[in-house]
This record gives sequence, structure tokens and C-alpha cells, in this order.
Amino acid sequence: MEAFRMFHELGVAPPVNVKFVIEGEEEVGSPNLDKWLADNNGDLGADVAVISDTALAGPDRPSIVIGLRGLVYTEIEVTGPARDLHSGQYGGAVLNPIHALARIVAALHDGDGRITIPGFYDSVRVLSDEERATIASAPFDAAAHARTTGEAGSWGEAGYTVRERLGARPTLDANGIWGGWTGAGAKTVIPSKAFAKISMRLIPNQEPDEIFEKFAAHVRALAPAGVKVEVRLLNQGRACLVDTNLPAMRSARAAYAEVFGVEPVYMLEGGSIPVVASLAEILDVSTVLMGFGLPDDNLHAPDEHYALENYYRGIETAIAFYEHLGGSAG
Amino acid sequence: MEAFRMFHELGVAPPVNVKFVIEGEEEVGSPNLDKWLADNNGDLGADVAVISDTALAGPDRPSIVIGLRGLVYTEIEVTGPARDLHSGQYGGAVLNPIHALARIVAALHDGDGRITIPGFYDSVRVLSDEERATIASAPFDAAAHARTTGEAGSWGEAGYTVRERLGARPTLDANGIWGGWTGAGAKTVIPSKAFAKISMRLIPNQEPDEIFEKFAAHVRALAPAGVKVEVRLLNQGRACLVDTNLPAMRSARAAYAEVFGVEPVYMLEGGSIPVVASLAEILDVSTVLMGFGLPDDNLHAPDEHYALENYYRGIETAIAFYEHLGGSAG
Repeated sequence: MEAFRMFHELGVAPPVNVKFVIEGEEEVGSPNLDKWLADNNGDLGADVAVISDTALAGPDRPSIVIGLRGLVYTEIEVTGPARDLHSGQYGGAVLNPIHALARIVAALHDGDGRITIPGFYDSVRVLSDEERATIASAPFDAAAHARTTGEAGSWGEAGYTVRERLGARPTLDANGIWGGWTGAGAKTVIPSKAFAKISMRLIPNQEPDEIFEKFAAHVRALAPAGVKVEVRLLNQGRACLVDTNLPAMRSARAAYAEVFGVEPVYMLEGGSIPVVASLAEILDVSTVLMGFGLPDDNLHAPDEHYALENYYRGIETAIAFYEHLGGSAG
Repeated sequence: MEAFRMFHELGVAPPVNVKFVIEGEEEVGSPNLDKWLADNNGDLGADVAVISDTALAGPDRPSIVIGLRGLVYTEIEVTGPARDLHSGQYGGAVLNPIHALARIVAALHDGDGRITIPGFYDSVRVLSDEERATIASAPFDAAAHARTTGEAGSWGEAGYTVRERLGARPTLDANGIWGGWTGAGAKTVIPSKAFAKISMRLIPNQEPDEIFEKFAAHVRALAPAGVKVEVRLLNQGRACLVDTNLPAMRSARAAYAEVFGVEPVYMLEGGSIPVVASLAEILDVSTVLMGFGLPDDNLHAPDEHYALENYYRGIETAIAFYEHLGGSAG
């Protein structure tokens, strides 16, 4: 690795002032963040926020994420009989909550991969030809996508490209399901309860609260008679779009170009970083998403990793960004 | 409790010879039992076998089970993407194995509670009016059934009574399902795999091997394109019917009547005791099912229990049975 130019070693003042907000609650729905931001609003004034939690388009293909999907994360609890029953003794004469849950989950998409929640797409804008062209021109490693997803990667909402499905359309996924005997071998039980975790990724204009209400009503409507259904909201966040005309976005572009030797591209990211919406709504501060991960870093999966090379390039890009932002760039 | 008449204390020889076969493998599919029975065929000759693994119709309503359902217990493994994926990064562009599994499980019954496996009912006899009348006259505590099953107990195969569904018709139940994040809170993962345990209760004439093949083919046919499906057989056993004209059945009736003060009734039992078929096929020995449990003993569930009163009455009934069987009854 090369040596970095440390501002204090160079005898120059840092070109910008920096305040750190460390968000450690994202994966549990950030229950305290918004209140804390509001309580400390006076101390947190800033021209722009910077978050490094996104990925490059590829190892030598810098990119700046300009759109993040929102999130609604739920848990469904289906209750059938009052207690676990022996499937030989009661099988055939009791509605099994696993079957009821399977029917609910199976009915959440139609045969074209569209989400069946009534009103789910009401506030989803139709993509313009120009937007579709922009999305189509973004770098995308189809071979890597195919390697990771296998034949399962051929699935998706009819009428949209893989790139559109990944960032420009809202989605729904079961993140977990469980009920009854899940150990090795056979146990002949009809469980009293079965559960699923279902999350939705939202695009701008979809209100998380409203989407959750529509989802919960749909799940209750899909439940067959004979079971009780509870739907809980675990986690939520609004989608966001970053204004590409921000001065800080120009600084970010220049910094990536300087360090990587190529102009960065704008990308839509399928994931969610709810704090971005909180910073905008509570502090009125826009965020620049300068990430340095790679699409195959196995986020949230076993063997999640991060290349040291990108770590060092990220430091360099951040330095260049601060110089451009502070007006001290050579 | 009263004192029992011990044969040796009374100075009389036991009225019958008794051999014990202790079957400790039932819940893992008895992988060694049939070979052991065949290897020891010469030592195991008997006039009749007795098994106490069934329930009374009620605390003071003795009953003898004359039919047991067979069992086919399977595990389904559905594989989608090659590894677990982040649902924000890949959601919308990959077939989620939980959704694929939900579609399979949801499609195993039709809207009338019938099992959809092609050919599943081929060898199932139509119940005669006489058989239906016999089943209808068997004791059944509808209030207890409703208490245990709640509203879920209103479900079942259209065209059959609860009593018929419980013993005279074949059934299919998911005994377990799991995949993805099943802990507390939210994890935004699309798992690579999802699993279910599915078992079927069979009636006489349904061959377990044949039913398993039909089930596996059906599951593979139901799987949407983009996932791989494996179906494994974990456990199986044939259904059986006991001949009510066996001399030992007459002895059993007399013994129950003597101890309980009322004639026992014949009942069909929904559960499976695969060793009964093995004893008949390998040793050519019929089994009398003299059980002393109660329908609400919570078999295979938390808080499974057994009343001491039935334990003592069971000992008395067994003594009376041996006396009648050996011709030494008063």
C-alpha cells in the first residue's frame, strides 16, 4: 500500500469539519435514532452527510448510488389448534397452520412475479423511456449475477429487466419461515403455530406505514377460515433519491475519477439505508453515498468479506472528496 | 390402588407364556427391526401379539383399536440461489426457495381438503353404508375435540365426518417447515435453501412405496422453474386391520368388560404402529391392540402425560386377558 497524505503531517488544516454519527441500530429497526437526531439537531448541523455502505459497480468501475429502496419488514404468526397435536391422532381433521401459512405466502405473488397486495403499486411511478435507458446503461456483470443466483436468477416481475427489478421496482421476499419439527428425522406433530418473516423493498413515493397496513389486511384476507393470523411490523424505512446536482455530488464524482482513473456512474441500489431518510427529514441534510464494497462481498451471508484494496482506495477517495468539497483540491 | 393378584403369590402357573419384543426404533423408522424379526423368527413363534400403544375412547369407555393407519414420512429440500443472498441486493431478481416451497405445500390439498397427488386415492376403498354406520356409532367426545382443535377443527376432507377423517381416510400434513432467518428480529436474507417435513397417513391397500413415488413425482412437478427439489423418504409403515374374529380378540373383549364394567367398542385409530404390519408379515402373528391412554394425553406434544388410574386398570385388564386367553378365567 502507498502512504496517505495526512493533513496534519502536511502542516495544513483539514479542508472540512467532520462530525461523526454512528448508527448501530439499523438491523433492529433503529428504535432510538430519530429521537436522538431530533434531540441533538442543534449540534448536528452540516452541509452534507457521507455514508460508505454501498458497493462499486466492479473492482475498477467506481459508482455513486443515487437511489435506495425503502423497507417494510414484518412477521406473520399463524395459530391453528390450541396446542401441538399428534398428526396420527388429529391429522385430517384439523387445519394445519403450516398449510395455512404456505397458502398465504404462495399467494403473495401472482404467476407473473407481481405482488398481489391490493394497492401496492398505486404510488409507483411508471418508468420513463429515459429512465429505462439510464438503467440499461449502468454497468452490470451478468455473468457474476448468473453465477450467484443460478437458475433462480431467471425469476422476476414480468416486463422488467434484471437491472430494473434490482433497483427500480418494489419487491417482496420471505426472509424466514418456521413451524413444527425442524430437527433431524421424523416427528409426527401438527404444530399449534407457524411463522414467517416477510419484507418488502419500496421505491420512492411508497409510504412504509401505508404499505404495511395494506400488507397486513391482505394477509388477513388470504388466511383460510380456522386459523388466527397476527401481522407485526418489525422494521421500516423510506426509500430515497439523491439529487445529482448537489455540489457535494460534483466533489464525489471528481474524487472517484481522480483515484480510479475513470468517471463514476450513477446507480440504483436495491438495499435500504433508512438513516438517509432520517437525516433528510429531521436534519434537512442530504447524503452522498460513497461506498467501496463489491457486489459479491456476500452481504448478510456466511463468508461476508471486504477487499483490503478497496479499503485503501476508499481512504484515498475520501481524502480527495474532502479536498474538493473544501475547495483545496489541486 | 388395590392389590393385584400375582400369579406366583396365588401359587398358580401363569396361564400363558409371554415373550417380550421391545421396539425402541419406531420414531426413527425402525431401520433394524424387520431384519431382526426375520433373523429370530424361530424363537419368536406366538399365538398372538399384544401392544399397549393406543387410547381408550374415554376414561370409562373401554375400546379396542381394530385399524391403524400407515405412514409415509418425507423431507423436501428446495434449493434456489447458490448461496444465501441479501434481499435488498438481490430481491426481485431471484426465485426465493421459501416462496417455491410455499407454493408446493399450498398445492398439496385442493379447496375441498382433498390431497392432490395424482393416483393417491386409487386403492382407497369407498366406505360402505354399514362401515359408515359403525364409525358413526363409535364413541367420540365432540366437545373435547373442539376444545383441543379450536376453529381449526372445522377443517377436513369434504364429504366425510370428523370421525371418518380421523381414522378411515388417508391424510397429508406438514409436520415442519424452515428456511432463512428464524430468530428474533429482522434479517434481510434470501436463503439458498428451504425445507419441509411432510407425512401421509395411509389406510389399508395403500402401499407406502408406491405412495412415496407418487408424492415425490407430484412435488417435483409442482416445483416452479428455477429451483432444484429433492424429496427424501424418512420413515414408512403399512396400515393394518385386525380380524375381530380372532380368539384373542374375544379374550380382550371379556377382559375389558370385566375390569371396566362395560363392553369395549371397536375403533379406528388415526396413528400408525408399523411393527404391527411387520409382526403379521414376517412372523405371521396377529396383534391385539389393548391400549389404556386417553385421547387428551398430548401425545408427541409438550406436557404429554398418562393417568396413573389407567395404568393400574391396564394391569388389571392385562391379567384378566391372560386368564381368558389361557382358559383359566373364572
